[in-house]
Amino acid sequence: VLHLGGSVVELAPGRAVLRPPFRAELAQQHGFFHAGALTTLADTAAGYAAFTLMLEGAAVLTAEFKTNFLRPGRGAAAVARAEVLKPGRTLMTVRADGFCAPEDGGAGELAATMLATMAVVRDRPDVPPG
Amino acid sequence: VLHLGGSVVELAPGRAVLRPPFRAELAQQHGFFHAGALTTLADTAAGYAAFTLMLEGAAVLTAEFKTNFLRPGRGAAAVARAEVLKPGRTLMTVRADGFCAPEDGGAGELAATMLATMAVVRDRPDVPPG
Amino acid sequence: VLHLGGSVVELAPGRAVLRPPFRAELAQQHGFFHAGALTTLADTAAGYAAFTLMLEGAAVLTAEFKTNFLRPGRGAAAVARAEVLKPGRTLMTVRADGFCAPEDGGAGELAATMLATMAVVRDRPDVPPG
Amino acid sequence: VLHLGGSVVELAPGRAVLRPPFRAELAQQHGFFHAGALTTLADTAAGYAAFTLMLEGAAVLTAEFKTNFLRPGRGAAAVARAEVLKPGRTLMTVRADGFCAPEDGGAGELAATMLATMAVVRDRPDVPPG
Repeated sequence: VLHLGGSVVELAPGRAVLRPPFRAELAQQHGFFHAGALTTLADTAAGYAAFTLMLEGAAVLTAEFKTNFLRPGRGAAAVARAEVLKPGRTLMTVRADGFCAPEDGGAGELAATMLATMAVVRDRPDVPPG
Repeated sequence: VLHLGGSVVELAPGRAVLRPPFRAELAQQHGFFHAGALTTLADTAAGYAAFTLMLEGAAVLTAEFKTNFLRPGRGAAAVARAEVLKPGRTLMTVRADGFCAPEDGGAGELAATMLATMAVVRDRPDVPPG
Repeated sequence: VLHLGGSVVELAPGRAVLRPPFRAELAQQHGFFHAGALTTLADTAAGYAAFTLMLEGAAVLTAEFKTNFLRPGRGAAAVARAEVLKPGRTLMTVRADGFCAPEDGGAGELAATMLATMAVVRDRPDVPPG
Repeated sequence: VLHLGGSVVELAPGRAVLRPPFRAELAQQHGFFHAGALTTLADTAAGYAAFTLMLEGAAVLTAEFKTNFLRPGRGAAAVARAEVLKPGRTLMTVRADGFCAPEDGGAGELAATMLATMAVVRDRPDVPPG
């Protein structure tokens, strides 16, 4: 378990869970999490999950992702869970789900699901490792 | 041309161009625009483009989007251009491109392209019109 | 369990499994299943899964899908498994996985995974129910 | 202009147009082109477009694609047009559009649009060049 920029990150081989601190700017003005904010959260978790399977010195870049938004992401907190479906030498396919916990403390609901392709890059001076 | 939250928004039927002010939090720590930030920008432009074709009282929700990242989004400014490919009564398919202008003032490059499905909703008390 | 066009279809609420008969035209010339063939199979299973949750008289249309191809789809048989992630009155989000069974009779591997949006349509004379 | 398997293929650097012969199995039972058939057509055109920019000895594999279906693909003929948006050494982003020409001989309509990631592979004995 890491603490990065206020976020809690749980890592296991091919998996990552990301729990950001509540930040007002993540929420829409009507109490919903933005599509963009949920996507950013899921993309970050996907990158961490891919990173757990990469060789030293390699970096990860998001090649593409697709996100379906299932429910209005309402609530007090959001969590992203990512899993590498297929590791590869140059590409990794990752699924990441975004959950939102309601303000009444109930269990989180699946608010968004992402399917992403992460590119493993090496020897790119413009992309720092990690 | 509107000015919303510091952003300049150009609207035409089925089209929108969004030019946000430079905001440090949009940039990665190494001078790149985040995948998530470019996606949020493109999604917002897509929503505006869909909104230009909607009847009064309707609201737009992002059902899903997919973004391909073509180049590192480096530079001083980002712009999103969105176009409705197919308007519909309940669904609109929108393409949105994200461009990044280099710091040397050169022309912007296509950094990301999005294909999105926007849902037109009515009579949803939890989703405010507009 | 239905038998439709030579295929075996297992249905449960929100779920479908589709096992087509081996057809030579599904296979690439080098013994792989085509990306397009796996996608067609997954899309069909996704449509069946959505159909199990629809009211009588409604029909399902594929609004969009995205498929990631994880491994070369080699083998003697393919199976698609679909699950509705979020049923809705006008839209359903469905995940569908395509598995390929190797010719030596071993267990099937996940060859492709799809995330799809199905539109529920009513009163469209050009789209027959079911 | 090539003639392959009954199809006409027009190639230019980074572009391909694919015009298959009318085949009954492409059409739905109600006179529409299947989502899967349009996707297969677009994916094939995308592969040809990527191939025009590849070095000798390399092969192309579809890593992923996403297709939005804009209109019922009705008519007598379908055409796919593909364009490489970003060529790369290991990945190419390609857009491919599927058009359907109505039976009355009118101009074709955009029926589907695809955004695809093609992987450039080398030295893979299981994937033949081309």
